[in-house]
Amino acid sequence: MLSQSARRTARTLPLRAFQTPTSPLQRRNISAYGYEQAKALTFTNYGEPPDVLSLHTHSISPPYGNLMTLRFLASPINPADINQIQGVYPSKPTFTTSLSTKDPIAVAGNEGVAEVIALGEKAKAEGFKKGDWVIMKGPGFGTWRTHASAQPSDVVRLEDEVREGITPVQAGTVSINPCTAYRMLQDFTPLCEGDWFIQNGANSGVGRAAIQLAKKWGVRSINVIRARDDKAKEEEMKQELREIGADIVITDAELQAQGIRDMAKQWTNGGREPIRLGLNCVNGKPAIAMAKLLAAESHFVTYGAMSKQPLTVPASLLIFKDIHFDGFWVSRWADRHPEEKKRTVEDVLGMTRRGEFRDMPVDEIKWEWESKGEGLIGKVKNTLEGYRDGKGIFVFGKT
Amino acid sequence: MLSQSARRTARTLPLRAFQTPTSPLQRRNISAYGYEQAKALTFTNYGEPPDVLSLHTHSISPPYGNLMTLRFLASPINPADINQIQGVYPSKPTFTTSLSTKDPIAVAGNEGVAEVIALGEKAKAEGFKKGDWVIMKGPGFGTWRTHASAQPSDVVRLEDEVREGITPVQAGTVSINPCTAYRMLQDFTPLCEGDWFIQNGANSGVGRAAIQLAKKWGVRSINVIRARDDKAKEEEMKQELREIGADIVITDAELQAQGIRDMAKQWTNGGREPIRLGLNCVNGKPAIAMAKLLAAESHFVTYGAMSKQPLTVPASLLIFKDIHFDGFWVSRWADRHPEEKKRTVEDVLGMTRRGEFRDMPVDEIKWEWESKGEGLIGKVKNTLEGYRDGKGIFVFGKT
Repeated sequence: MLSQSARRTARTLPLRAFQTPTSPLQRRNISAYGYEQAKALTFTNYGEPPDVLSLHTHSISPPYGNLMTLRFLASPINPADINQIQGVYPSKPTFTTSLSTKDPIAVAGNEGVAEVIALGEKAKAEGFKKGDWVIMKGPGFGTWRTHASAQPSDVVRLEDEVREGITPVQAGTVSINPCTAYRMLQDFTPLCEGDWFIQNGANSGVGRAAIQLAKKWGVRSINVIRARDDKAKEEEMKQELREIGADIVITDAELQAQGIRDMAKQWTNGGREPIRLGLNCVNGKPAIAMAKLLAAESHFVTYGAMSKQPLTVPASLLIFKDIHFDGFWVSRWADRHPEEKKRTVEDVLGMTRRGEFRDMPVDEIKWEWESKGEGLIGKVKNTLEGYRDGKGIFVFGKT
Repeated sequence: MLSQSARRTARTLPLRAFQTPTSPLQRRNISAYGYEQAKALTFTNYGEPPDVLSLHTHSISPPYGNLMTLRFLASPINPADINQIQGVYPSKPTFTTSLSTKDPIAVAGNEGVAEVIALGEKAKAEGFKKGDWVIMKGPGFGTWRTHASAQPSDVVRLEDEVREGITPVQAGTVSINPCTAYRMLQDFTPLCEGDWFIQNGANSGVGRAAIQLAKKWGVRSINVIRARDDKAKEEEMKQELREIGADIVITDAELQAQGIRDMAKQWTNGGREPIRLGLNCVNGKPAIAMAKLLAAESHFVTYGAMSKQPLTVPASLLIFKDIHFDGFWVSRWADRHPEEKKRTVEDVLGMTRRGEFRDMPVDEIKWEWESKGEGLIGKVKNTLEGYRDGKGIFVFGKT
């Protein structure tokens, strides 16, 4: 345990915020006694985000022992975060009274990147230092907050050379979508150069990540997007995916039209370059249409069900074509394989730095100290309604 | 190539049929020139078995080179045989004019055991000898026939010590049901002593084989059978399965009733002895009810769809519970792993010899030289209509 004075010393080191004072309000989050003032989007009961979320202000004690105080840099709004607030996601948030409330509350959000701004001696002994960037080890920590108190076991430290040249938005969005795409391409079936995979939801964060990773590994992709009434917009989207490396882009209507088998044969050199993997986040009939194009003994991996339809699998695909229907959940994987998560994140960030991996378009939502709860919650509501093509991401001011 | 005289010599060795003459008609299948007279249930076009099957008589030349003449001992009637005749089975029979017909015909049946009654020098050089018992290497050979000409690559030879004490019915039914059960228990997930598996169609040939194999390996079984109106009959069937080693037997109605989760917990020591494997030959809702009882990361293997319903998989079972939905087809496996087939068959026959593996009840259909086509085809029709609990099996007289 550190003495009270040691803790205070730790907090009196200059913060970058001090060096660029842009507003007299900016430092209100440090109290005279070294306590960090923090704000968080929290909820007490499950429900629709606009109904149950509120912006809660609390203070964080100076860290000691293995505690670290984090300042969040960027935290995306993922569909799973919404499901978690609604109470329909299997990974539950942590309800706690440690944020100075009478009733237990949970902080929303699961993904994000934060900077270590203060830490106890034990945390230092575990290799952490001030200024380190960390991402969450798994779900349920609560990332829609300006600051948090964390332990080393809550986070994955990004080595200095890994974060070099990486923006907070890039680091804050690497854990879920790129990792999902990466592991699904790697862990179900060995893909050789020249092999194909097929995926729906190709325009999603995971879809775009999969296109780019496959391209880099010499694996080719057939990409399915939803048909749009606006054909110009549809074509523009196809073009966008081709630009990041998609070999073939079709709509779900084209996938389900007659003649698709012949077309697939043409693309894959008469089937001699087999389609060995299917990635599905849509479900319903179009998903099965995709599974029917797979070569015998392939894997079909479901990681979402955006159509809210089930997956009705014909027995013949299982028995006679020996297609394996698997699922993937990045949270379970991260929980089971922390070392692999670190390596995967490092690899993706390396590609990002070298310009080999392009970000998903994002909609940056500035979260300043003075941002009102209403405005922030409104942005969550917008994501819930899915009006955007890009992904909403809170980017925190240097509060 | 053997000379004509050598071939004739091969055919002049005494046959067992000669040693026990019970009927003056019995030797009519050997012509004066060493040709074997044979009868086979054949079809020219796909269709319902009673409509398209006919009993065809032909002769087989004396074998030379790597050819062997087989006399069938026992050939079962499996559901897949019916589907194959109907033209709806992915493994097609061999249509040929080599049985002295103008139009190509196919011999029905896929499983069976035969005796080598004559063989060429090359077949001898490959380790075969007169009196050997052989089973089919894969499907499509045609086993509903008294005799056939075969090559070593068509068959798996049963070593003398393997067939010791084994009846033709036992050897003739080992390839499909026991091999299916054996491989499904072995090849999808490592089962430890004390682990559980759950299966439907538990009263089927595969189901009964799985119960017995699991029992021997220390793995416990939850067995689902169809509910019957006749409750005494239902209880009798449960008792029968318990007698061959079933730990738990329930009906599909009981499986889908409320409280099944709690019961499953009770059986499996609060879930600490996990249900790691599901075997499904039924499909439809009851199959999914079974999948929901599996521990996370388990495998659910479909090898049939007797209800003719599809398998509608909830996304949560794939994504969050990480259940793998696989299929198994014994023909594909036998084709891919001939050596493993030999070992599996040997292991099951070893257990049979030691009294550790009991046969499925069978309905023996005697096929004598003088048996009429009409009668034999009638038996196939009965199997098609599924009026029996036991499995129909042709048992050939010593023609």
